[in-house]
Amino acid sequence: MRTKPKLKIGLIGLGNVGLRLAEELIKNKDLDNFISLESVLVRNLEKYNNVVSSDKKLGTDRKFLLSKLTDDTEYFFEHSDTDVVVELVGGIDEASQYVERALLGKKHVVTANKELISHKLYELTELAKSHKVKLRFEAAVGAGIPIIEVLSDMLKQNEIKRITGIINGTSNYILSAMFERSSDFLEVLKEAQNLGYAESDPTNDVDGFDAKFKINILGSIAFGCWIPLESIYVKGIRDISGRDIMYAREFKYNIKLLAITEKKENLISTRVNPALVPLSHPLANVNGNYNAVEIMGDLVGKLWIQGEGAGKNSTTSAVLGDLLGIYNSSSADIVLDKDNGQYMDDNETFSRNYVRLSVEDRYGVLSQISGIFSENKISISSVIQKDATEMDGSVDLVVMTHEASQKNFLMAIKKINSLSVVKSNPVTIRIHE
Amino acid sequence: MRTKPKLKIGLIGLGNVGLRLAEELIKNKDLDNFISLESVLVRNLEKYNNVVSSDKKLGTDRKFLLSKLTDDTEYFFEHSDTDVVVELVGGIDEASQYVERALLGKKHVVTANKELISHKLYELTELAKSHKVKLRFEAAVGAGIPIIEVLSDMLKQNEIKRITGIINGTSNYILSAMFERSSDFLEVLKEAQNLGYAESDPTNDVDGFDAKFKINILGSIAFGCWIPLESIYVKGIRDISGRDIMYAREFKYNIKLLAITEKKENLISTRVNPALVPLSHPLANVNGNYNAVEIMGDLVGKLWIQGEGAGKNSTTSAVLGDLLGIYNSSSADIVLDKDNGQYMDDNETFSRNYVRLSVEDRYGVLSQISGIFSENKISISSVIQKDATEMDGSVDLVVMTHEASQKNFLMAIKKINSLSVVKSNPVTIRIHE
Repeated sequence: MRTKPKLKIGLIGLGNVGLRLAEELIKNKDLDNFISLESVLVRNLEKYNNVVSSDKKLGTDRKFLLSKLTDDTEYFFEHSDTDVVVELVGGIDEASQYVERALLGKKHVVTANKELISHKLYELTELAKSHKVKLRFEAAVGAGIPIIEVLSDMLKQNEIKRITGIINGTSNYILSAMFERSSDFLEVLKEAQNLGYAESDPTNDVDGFDAKFKINILGSIAFGCWIPLESIYVKGIRDISGRDIMYAREFKYNIKLLAITEKKENLISTRVNPALVPLSHPLANVNGNYNAVEIMGDLVGKLWIQGEGAGKNSTTSAVLGDLLGIYNSSSADIVLDKDNGQYMDDNETFSRNYVRLSVEDRYGVLSQISGIFSENKISISSVIQKDATEMDGSVDLVVMTHEASQKNFLMAIKKINSLSVVKSNPVTIRIHE
Repeated sequence: MRTKPKLKIGLIGLGNVGLRLAEELIKNKDLDNFISLESVLVRNLEKYNNVVSSDKKLGTDRKFLLSKLTDDTEYFFEHSDTDVVVELVGGIDEASQYVERALLGKKHVVTANKELISHKLYELTELAKSHKVKLRFEAAVGAGIPIIEVLSDMLKQNEIKRITGIINGTSNYILSAMFERSSDFLEVLKEAQNLGYAESDPTNDVDGFDAKFKINILGSIAFGCWIPLESIYVKGIRDISGRDIMYAREFKYNIKLLAITEKKENLISTRVNPALVPLSHPLANVNGNYNAVEIMGDLVGKLWIQGEGAGKNSTTSAVLGDLLGIYNSSSADIVLDKDNGQYMDDNETFSRNYVRLSVEDRYGVLSQISGIFSENKISISSVIQKDATEMDGSVDLVVMTHEASQKNFLMAIKKINSLSVVKSNPVTIRIHE
């Protein structure tokens, strides 16, 4: 093994993860036989000179890392002697230029950039293939949890039926805290922001976009076609209140932000939405900022994998795994057919639903509402009516439906919302079985 | 890829799993490009001719499979044209002869036989290495759950600190049912036997031997040395009563049969024992006959992987994965150093403990008992005394200790057991944090 030449690495970006990776590459003597760090491209040389100079972990290796820093893109791509480029800048535009330039220059690429990969998965895998180099991105979904590796390996002998993931740590942290204390969304969000678990603009996490990029990647790998981002239904967790969590608990459910991709009779359906998950379901017990994914294969049945889906150590573990995979030529290539997929409109999907209505407290209300459900071919599996909780004397009516098409369900909800006895917009959450 | 010659398979054993595998090899057209079934060695040709002839799934492929059956060992090994032998007979002696003969004949080997692998891991990996062939046994631990693959890949960039597994489905089924209904062991065992989840002689499962073989395999891979089976401490679940489960629940714990292997300051400690697991711990929520493993790495943190740890479909998925891994020359070889390990005696390990005592209901008993714990340098974290439950008026005293060495703990228990106020053998269960 040791006669094989080392893999020479060019690193782009020296943020949290980049610096951690550089430290590991320089200080881990086991890796030293396989991998060497040749060049690090940064935007602001002076700033990173300071960062490296004050890094305590590096000790006497500071000088070595300082000698590798450059802000000269031309030098980095054309003159530094590297086999593989690790892209850790994030975002799409700049990262995309770097990754394409690397692949065109016949350098392998490892990236942790889910946004880039979900937007350009097809072009980039084609580019890598035509230039006979590897593109690896294990860290893009669930950081160090080897989800992509397990999925790729399962694929060989299993037909994948469905993937269901809790793949956004921030929203899972918020929902877990809400469940633990029956608190409201905004209260827990503020706390998460103070603790650094949520960003000051939390849109990407709590509105489901981050999960959308990740499930897009997983679904594309699972079904061998590049799922168009615009075919993915996305709903975030802002509407969920402590009261919904409380009612869910009464029915023995937790509420989780699920990302789901499934294939039924050749139609692929992919979505991100909050869902009631039975407390006995493994995903209902994934708490805090952990990530977990359930993969369903025809032979192996259901498989769950859970771990730390973010953080510099976990991400570094995934990037190193990808690098060693390239060194050993082990991991399998992802095969995508651009035109292979047919996609189901979310309106055509079927599910059970939870509905919370704020209604006037008088006779006949339930009969009006259940009448509308019935007209739209939706049967009700249970109803609870709560005592008056509002200043205006309205009460909460919670309805759990049997399975129905999303189209019929939304029509029913629209009609119910127009009733004069209904006091605010209904809160609806799908039920996951 | 398709220009690569197919992998030619010789299968030994046509039980549940063997037949399922044969069906998949014959009927799965995706596998057809990579793998072909050449010969099937069975002990009783007439019996299996009948089995195959009455197999409904095979349909018109029955004839093909019938033509591959042989009871001639000499022919199978020396004259049938195979690259890889799949051993599915189980047990040690006969299987060992087959596997060694295959490796000596420069054939790759895939096996699901945990007993064989845990007894002969070192010899067989050496034999495979010296004959330049592969030995693969993913199905030996957790069937289709890719535990060995995930562990082997993590190892490349992580130092493994500890592996904690629920890896015996039968005992987990029994403990889960006991927890759900606070039932006693024998009652649930009988039910499990009636349902076919436990064998008529359940020793292998409920006394921890099956889990011992599996944790031996995982620990040996994780720490790169072949852990001697006799260094593994084993305790089964027969002593656990519905009352222990009930008390554990009061303290917010579940009781699980855990298999643990860990390395601390170069000393490896491996054991199988029932343990109180906090209800908030992911392993506490693994129910029914599922298997799950927690792997702790220095970079990636904790990783959990869960799925169906038995069954013909799940096992077939693992065997096929191994075969495709051999075909693609992907999966990494296991590297073992026979003399690399130092092993800790179980008496030297530290843990918290749960103790249930049946004591006379009178003053001074608690003071006597806590005195003995204190003499042995064990502090008590909590005590509950239960109302009289026995005919003789004795009461249950439940003690939870702080961390102490197992040696001190056992000395204390021995002394407590000799007290005249103690009415039956103390039940002790470790606490897992």
